[in-house]
Amino acid sequence: MRYRARVEYDGTEFAGFQAQPGRRTVQGELERALTHLSGGHRLRVDGAGRTDAGVHAAGQLIAFTWPGRLDARQLERGLGALLPRDVAIGRLVRVAPDFQPRRAASRREYRYSIWNGRPSPLRERWALGLRERLDVEAMQAAARHLVGRHDFSAFGRVQGHGIRTLHEVRVRRQGSLVTVDVTGDAFLRHMVRSIVAALVRVGLGQSTEQELVDAMRGPGRAFAGSLAPPHGLSLRRVVIGRPGRMDRSERQDEDRRRGI
Amino acid sequence: MRYRARVEYDGTEFAGFQAQPGRRTVQGELERALTHLSGGHRLRVDGAGRTDAGVHAAGQLIAFTWPGRLDARQLERGLGALLPRDVAIGRLVRVAPDFQPRRAASRREYRYSIWNGRPSPLRERWALGLRERLDVEAMQAAARHLVGRHDFSAFGRVQGHGIRTLHEVRVRRQGSLVTVDVTGDAFLRHMVRSIVAALVRVGLGQSTEQELVDAMRGPGRAFAGSLAPPHGLSLRRVVIGRPGRMDRSERQDEDRRRGI
Repeated sequence: MRYRARVEYDGTEFAGFQAQPGRRTVQGELERALTHLSGGHRLRVDGAGRTDAGVHAAGQLIAFTWPGRLDARQLERGLGALLPRDVAIGRLVRVAPDFQPRRAASRREYRYSIWNGRPSPLRERWALGLRERLDVEAMQAAARHLVGRHDFSAFGRVQGHGIRTLHEVRVRRQGSLVTVDVTGDAFLRHMVRSIVAALVRVGLGQSTEQELVDAMRGPGRAFAGSLAPPHGLSLRRVVIGRPGRMDRSERQDEDRRRGI
Repeated sequence: MRYRARVEYDGTEFAGFQAQPGRRTVQGELERALTHLSGGHRLRVDGAGRTDAGVHAAGQLIAFTWPGRLDARQLERGLGALLPRDVAIGRLVRVAPDFQPRRAASRREYRYSIWNGRPSPLRERWALGLRERLDVEAMQAAARHLVGRHDFSAFGRVQGHGIRTLHEVRVRRQGSLVTVDVTGDAFLRHMVRSIVAALVRVGLGQSTEQELVDAMRGPGRAFAGSLAPPHGLSLRRVVIGRPGRMDRSERQDEDRRRGI
């Protein structure tokens, strides 16, 4: 029996999603709990996105194949009891035996949060604290050049070609909170944090819209070395198949993600 | 030179506001930083409210007397560099040499947050997670009896008499988030958490509005033994003098508190 589910985590104390020997990871914690529940079977959890160490997720998508006798609701309760405080699993939904989250995902939505005001411990757990005022209009103008199908090699670690499609890069200010929402079909490694670092440079007047355009068109990885810190980033949602389609359990989960 | 300031902290890793030997406290961290900056003077920090271990503050009010030569802006920068990540101090405002936050405070505003939905690690760092649906209308009806001047001995640890005035007890739901805002002139120890625990019992149908009214009128401390956990509580604001008056630095800080 194969299931998919939404997973939420506070990435602060994780070395990222992907399992690594000797490190505390989200995949590792999920697999440990499933192995325990199954009575010792070595189960593999597949995720739609490999979030870096310190990056959060309100809506990571995972799947696993369950060999045991518990039904979905019992399994949910069992996982709820076994998972640590900083990771939680949503409703289990049955999928085809060959369902792979990475392949099934047609769209990924990330949010980067910046607390652009005086120091705030409560805000800055999940946002980058920046004291100097950001010029959000300049960031918005620069962001427009990123939308569409481009070679994003300048912004990430490339394996193969760097062509990806971004559907939206939206920069907004609400009081002291500045958010950068980035939606795309797929992402290079570190791409969102690299884009945010570039936009922040524009917002601080350290770089111009034109320099960003030139870097995108030019060869090399002009912006790839500079990354916004991980704790401001959250994978908010992974959409399966046609964008915008949500099943009932996803709609039920929807209001959990507001503001994160 | 005496100063007052707003202080924000994530209470998770503090044994409360008040200094205690061998424990990590907010007062202790502030005094340590000030002592360091002053070149070894033993300085005392006074706070308006003694929040319990694990309770947060978006707007605690503190005051201290500064014997050194740094001016207010230099002192702010110095404190910013010396304080740990989970506590931050706002603008310093000069006050009279005899200013005492506890006496000066005319109103204290607390918020208790409840995440009344599926498990959410990102929400439940600063909110109590409750899976069973709360009847918010029943809680609102019960809350109305708490507003006004009453003997709150049923809800707190009393030294002297238990008469206090609550200006507002407001229960609201926004999606899965239920908040209880409690505003009053002063509070008994544990009073807010005890009130919230009583309202939650009403919201879960474990207790009735009438039982809450009877407990308030009766002798003894019917609800005092039951406390909502500390991590859902935040001291949002301390008002000095006439309610509603804010100086410029307070207005500047205002949007930081939205939603916390």
